[in-house]
Amino acid sequence: MSTPKKVVLAYSGGLDTSIILKWLQTAYGCEVVTFTADLGQGEELEPARKKAELLGISPDNIYIEDLREEFVRDFVFPMFRANAVYEGLYLLGSSIARPLISKRLIEIAAETGADAIAHGATGKGNDQVRFELAAYALNPDIKVIAPWREWDLTSRTRLLDFAEKNQIPIAKDKRGEAPFSVDANLLHTSSEGKILEDPAVDAPDYVYQRTVNPEDAPDTPEFIEIGFERGDAVSINGEALSPATLLTRLNDYGRKHGIGRLDLVEGRFVGMKSRGIYETPGGAILLEAHRGIEQITLDRNAGHLKDQLMPQYAEMIYNGFWFSPEREMLQALIDKSQEHVTGTARVKLYKGLARTVGRWSDQSLYSEEHVTFEDDAGAYDQKDAAGFIKLNALRLRLNAMRARKAGK
Amino acid sequence: MSTPKKVVLAYSGGLDTSIILKWLQTAYGCEVVTFTADLGQGEELEPARKKAELLGISPDNIYIEDLREEFVRDFVFPMFRANAVYEGLYLLGSSIARPLISKRLIEIAAETGADAIAHGATGKGNDQVRFELAAYALNPDIKVIAPWREWDLTSRTRLLDFAEKNQIPIAKDKRGEAPFSVDANLLHTSSEGKILEDPAVDAPDYVYQRTVNPEDAPDTPEFIEIGFERGDAVSINGEALSPATLLTRLNDYGRKHGIGRLDLVEGRFVGMKSRGIYETPGGAILLEAHRGIEQITLDRNAGHLKDQLMPQYAEMIYNGFWFSPEREMLQALIDKSQEHVTGTARVKLYKGLARTVGRWSDQSLYSEEHVTFEDDAGAYDQKDAAGFIKLNALRLRLNAMRARKAGK
Amino acid sequence: MSTPKKVVLAYSGGLDTSIILKWLQTAYGCEVVTFTADLGQGEELEPARKKAELLGISPDNIYIEDLREEFVRDFVFPMFRANAVYEGLYLLGSSIARPLISKRLIEIAAETGADAIAHGATGKGNDQVRFELAAYALNPDIKVIAPWREWDLTSRTRLLDFAEKNQIPIAKDKRGEAPFSVDANLLHTSSEGKILEDPAVDAPDYVYQRTVNPEDAPDTPEFIEIGFERGDAVSINGEALSPATLLTRLNDYGRKHGIGRLDLVEGRFVGMKSRGIYETPGGAILLEAHRGIEQITLDRNAGHLKDQLMPQYAEMIYNGFWFSPEREMLQALIDKSQEHVTGTARVKLYKGLARTVGRWSDQSLYSEEHVTFEDDAGAYDQKDAAGFIKLNALRLRLNAMRARKAGK
Amino acid sequence: MSTPKKVVLAYSGGLDTSIILKWLQTAYGCEVVTFTADLGQGEELEPARKKAELLGISPDNIYIEDLREEFVRDFVFPMFRANAVYEGLYLLGSSIARPLISKRLIEIAAETGADAIAHGATGKGNDQVRFELAAYALNPDIKVIAPWREWDLTSRTRLLDFAEKNQIPIAKDKRGEAPFSVDANLLHTSSEGKILEDPAVDAPDYVYQRTVNPEDAPDTPEFIEIGFERGDAVSINGEALSPATLLTRLNDYGRKHGIGRLDLVEGRFVGMKSRGIYETPGGAILLEAHRGIEQITLDRNAGHLKDQLMPQYAEMIYNGFWFSPEREMLQALIDKSQEHVTGTARVKLYKGLARTVGRWSDQSLYSEEHVTFEDDAGAYDQKDAAGFIKLNALRLRLNAMRARKAGK
Repeated sequence: MSTPKKVVLAYSGGLDTSIILKWLQTAYGCEVVTFTADLGQGEELEPARKKAELLGISPDNIYIEDLREEFVRDFVFPMFRANAVYEGLYLLGSSIARPLISKRLIEIAAETGADAIAHGATGKGNDQVRFELAAYALNPDIKVIAPWREWDLTSRTRLLDFAEKNQIPIAKDKRGEAPFSVDANLLHTSSEGKILEDPAVDAPDYVYQRTVNPEDAPDTPEFIEIGFERGDAVSINGEALSPATLLTRLNDYGRKHGIGRLDLVEGRFVGMKSRGIYETPGGAILLEAHRGIEQITLDRNAGHLKDQLMPQYAEMIYNGFWFSPEREMLQALIDKSQEHVTGTARVKLYKGLARTVGRWSDQSLYSEEHVTFEDDAGAYDQKDAAGFIKLNALRLRLNAMRARKAGK
Repeated sequence: MSTPKKVVLAYSGGLDTSIILKWLQTAYGCEVVTFTADLGQGEELEPARKKAELLGISPDNIYIEDLREEFVRDFVFPMFRANAVYEGLYLLGSSIARPLISKRLIEIAAETGADAIAHGATGKGNDQVRFELAAYALNPDIKVIAPWREWDLTSRTRLLDFAEKNQIPIAKDKRGEAPFSVDANLLHTSSEGKILEDPAVDAPDYVYQRTVNPEDAPDTPEFIEIGFERGDAVSINGEALSPATLLTRLNDYGRKHGIGRLDLVEGRFVGMKSRGIYETPGGAILLEAHRGIEQITLDRNAGHLKDQLMPQYAEMIYNGFWFSPEREMLQALIDKSQEHVTGTARVKLYKGLARTVGRWSDQSLYSEEHVTFEDDAGAYDQKDAAGFIKLNALRLRLNAMRARKAGK
Repeated sequence: MSTPKKVVLAYSGGLDTSIILKWLQTAYGCEVVTFTADLGQGEELEPARKKAELLGISPDNIYIEDLREEFVRDFVFPMFRANAVYEGLYLLGSSIARPLISKRLIEIAAETGADAIAHGATGKGNDQVRFELAAYALNPDIKVIAPWREWDLTSRTRLLDFAEKNQIPIAKDKRGEAPFSVDANLLHTSSEGKILEDPAVDAPDYVYQRTVNPEDAPDTPEFIEIGFERGDAVSINGEALSPATLLTRLNDYGRKHGIGRLDLVEGRFVGMKSRGIYETPGGAILLEAHRGIEQITLDRNAGHLKDQLMPQYAEMIYNGFWFSPEREMLQALIDKSQEHVTGTARVKLYKGLARTVGRWSDQSLYSEEHVTFEDDAGAYDQKDAAGFIKLNALRLRLNAMRARKAGK
Repeated sequence: MSTPKKVVLAYSGGLDTSIILKWLQTAYGCEVVTFTADLGQGEELEPARKKAELLGISPDNIYIEDLREEFVRDFVFPMFRANAVYEGLYLLGSSIARPLISKRLIEIAAETGADAIAHGATGKGNDQVRFELAAYALNPDIKVIAPWREWDLTSRTRLLDFAEKNQIPIAKDKRGEAPFSVDANLLHTSSEGKILEDPAVDAPDYVYQRTVNPEDAPDTPEFIEIGFERGDAVSINGEALSPATLLTRLNDYGRKHGIGRLDLVEGRFVGMKSRGIYETPGGAILLEAHRGIEQITLDRNAGHLKDQLMPQYAEMIYNGFWFSPEREMLQALIDKSQEHVTGTARVKLYKGLARTVGRWSDQSLYSEEHVTFEDDAGAYDQKDAAGFIKLNALRLRLNAMRARKAGK
């Protein structure tokens, strides 16, 4: 890789990315553009601007953007159409945010004539892969700088030394090491590392930041009705809401009722297993409701095909292949399935659990006429079942005849 | 089908199968053998014996058996190794019981020289398919009688008339129609039909028979530790338990904490959608714990392959293909994956929710040495990640170069 | 099913469907509309018109149509985008024609106010299923009459008696029974039954009607260049051709060189295995060429995903689920993959074999710069491979450490 | 990686691996053990011994072994049970040999107390990955040296200089560069690189070394009968043969008739596409025959499940994951399916094509009684098909009713 001249840095304004900013200037002698995005992580962005200015970034080179609607509309919602969960449980809250950040990094690089991007993810995690695969998929010539894989600031002490030497302000509470590492956006908060590294030991309650403890949640359940159109949530209790507003509202419900907590060990793309504590309050409700509305609007075999392919789709997103032909192919399949997924699911929220208890739709495939235990007025001829079974059984019978012939 | 001479009837002792018993004698003039099994449905079996005797069955032709251990060991546990759920939610509680019943019906037919079996499932449901596919797979020449598809007793009135005419005792509470239909065994209780037929309307609380309402469950959580060996649960809180005993114990925990309630609409094999209320108290805990122990003992790609195939495996069981080459092939794959799934999962039970909060194993693949945020003493070289990403990105970059060339 | 009043019959003009025509008039007393389609089976259609008139069908009720272009464009080509083969070998020549015929039957029923359709497929085969599933998917209320499942004309003698009694002319060569049964269209000719029923015995050479025996094919190979756009063949040797014209041309090539013969035993949807002799001269060439052009234009993972799903796609078509949500979902995925499948494949034709020997495209992903054994000017850094392998190996090494710990 | 002390080298005796041998001694100063295996590549092994001795390897450190039977029995045959082809065409001839070589390298390292292995594969290809993944899976602590990724002998001139400087004899025909690169074993010969790098240009005939040109093959076809037991070939024309002997015999047939030539472009695991000319004479016949015998002995759904999973299985082998939990899981599934794949396939060999024309088995599932066009004596009731179709159609009809309601 030839030396980069201008680099767009995914910049949070925090200590670590401030050190990276300075290190890029020092180690590569290159111009730095900062990009700070609001993806709903719940932090003010203006301090990042001031910090960047303080570190010598010219105002033209400071990009600060609210991407919440784009994030939910173009990333979170398409993913939820698939009911995607990784390894049976994880709702992919970190994974789905990375491609959007990379997309903007690449676009800003094009606008500013930068030839490189940089991020603050370590060399052990999945995020480096997600950032970089997305970047390369969008610009095959982009250079990527991942300081954590390169520099020698490999201990807390060295990092703080570097910061002090370079006049980077250090907040008091950043002097000591954080007891665990946190990532957050509108979809989720994840916590991992350090005190959470022993998967046998319960996570202490203070790790959970996004949801109340179910034990402290209200003692009476709450019911909400989520409206869907073509697979996407569009309203709560009849009120039409934009994607980000809707997810924010669901997060409020989920937080209140202690919904969406997860303690799991997952297999990282880079090869080791890691333990994470995840909170996805709104997402957990949304997944349940989406399954609820699919139950009456999605054809059986369409649903089974989706279910079969979901794990691979989730793996693609987890591994960082959002911008890939195979993800786009699966998305085309999934989106095709959602054409009639329109209607309303009624969900009960109570002490950590979201559970569908009703669903209705103009596009329902549920036919009381066919299923009823009562007189069905000829809608279904029970005698058809005899032939159906006989022909489904035929190959099994031929197998059995062979087995008998063989004396087994 | 030539006229059967001797038929083994899956006999519960209830009104419906008593009517079938009589009808078989009347309509076919054939000898009837009754088979009543304890699969943990929670009913006394001896009354069934008396009822059968009363209806003229000779003692030699009355089979009553406790199949609970075989049920859990050879059917429920193998299925749980796969984390099988149908359509994302249903734990297959009815589906998994049918093949065992058919297996015994066929075996008893062989012992008694019967040439037919009969069951009390209707022509609209899945159970007829499951009973009959299993039967044909085990004896290709068996005759199957499904009275509900054949007779003209198509209304409650006609049924009761037939019962009265044939001196079949009718319990007072069976005079009126049940407000919904129930199936139960050690794994689950399902309720469907009649008052539950509108999927938009919440199921009334009295439908739930197997679990307390989460609102009425204890206000403090309970933690249990479930031990696994090669994918099967073998102990609770350190106490070794037989399969059926263990599941019974888990059911007690689940009942108490309101765990395992499900309200869903599913796609039946015969083609229509139906709404069911399911309670799987112990099963819901077991599924969660099994996923928990797999998290540290199952190789990542092994787990992903299992996840990808699970929906088809679940569909096979749901559709009645337990005794089929394809289910046995998948079982061989799943069982192979479970060789190291040994260890303990710690599960929190609280107000409807079972959630893994810890897991440990002698066979753990989790390596704190590799994953740690701290110094890893060279276990993992972060620079390897650069090459890993570059080569994973190569085809994406080639795609991007093509797109750029095309001016897109 | 209430008695149909007016029925649209898939009518070939041959003896069997003429008998059906008469039988429909006799048994149901209903008005008959005949539909005769040219799908490239290589028979004149006008005799069918005369025969229908002779049997009393009014000219308004006689539909004769050339569907060859629609057949290839909307059915054959979309299927070939998937490289679909059933059970590894069969190119689905019969399967793909049925949905189009049903589609027209249903449309003509709507135009003529008919309430039923009828076909001449037997109760043992797949074609009945394909005709009827397609029909029901397009008109849920249509009545379907399948005379072979209903009537008592179960022997050749009875059929001929019925024909004579009803003044249906019988060609001399139809007096005796055909030695096997044939189906043909622009894509293929299949032969099965009777003398072919023993799968151990070679099919006699006269069974093959569509291709010369490879032993009799030219002694020198011929090379052709097939041009593709977005997955569909559009030209041969530089000459742009319509879909049906192109397939006809490929059939000529294939016939001449003895390409596309197949002798196989397949598993029917209705449960038994059957033996068929298939000839798909143009299709065999097209499949080979399509794979050839995909080799350089299709992303690796896109291709692998297609390959993985192809067997299910082929099964859907074989089983008659062309008009189903799941087939349409897979089609969306497949079509998405074909956006760049544009270019030319060069195929060698010789004595039964079509083999790609060259391929080129403006949209090629093949990069000589990257793959070359020579100096690659830095396009690829071989050192990246070390990290790539190390991280791909990490979980395998963790597995091995566990195995070693366990003393294995 | 700490410096290796003793390294086992996969040694062919050729110029390249001799240079590697010397380079290992020079660059690492370590003791070298050579391992030369006969996998059927058709070269004498004794010259390798002499060459090694000449280069100073002590006789104790020279391992020469005939692995042909193990190769075919434990690697080739299990793979053929799956009908494995990569990207629709490639029979994985190189891929399947690598894990066996690595297995012996690791075993010899254990025997000789070596701490490293070395191989002569380049940094651009798949073989490095296959060697190393297998090695790490078998010994997590092994060091792997891949000189082509490390050294500076990056041109032909430098290599020859190094050889001369180190007294490595250079055969005259090795002075100039080979026009393409070749790999061979009992299953196949592959040729790639240099003159073959333009995928648009036909490979010159002299590239094919293992098969006669079909144009030069005999003008009369030959028929052979291959016997199978539980999925593996065991005899030809009734003569029982050991695995390697059988494959050698099939290679002779294939060579003579010009069978198994392949010209393709494939997607490498490391990310680029490459063009290869493959010859798999015996393998091509074996694949065809195995499919032939499966046609009558393998249950339909068992076969479909295998077909669906085959591409992933082939990808695992291609990518080097032979020794992985996921490959072993799929193998368990595949082997389970082969329990009844016993019988004989009759194959016609003629001018490049192997085609099954007959098959028979004691374990056949083919039932002439069921499939016959003639009187089937009640084996199959055609009326069953009506119910079978009606219930398969039900969900399609419900979809259609919804579409109609929506005015579509």
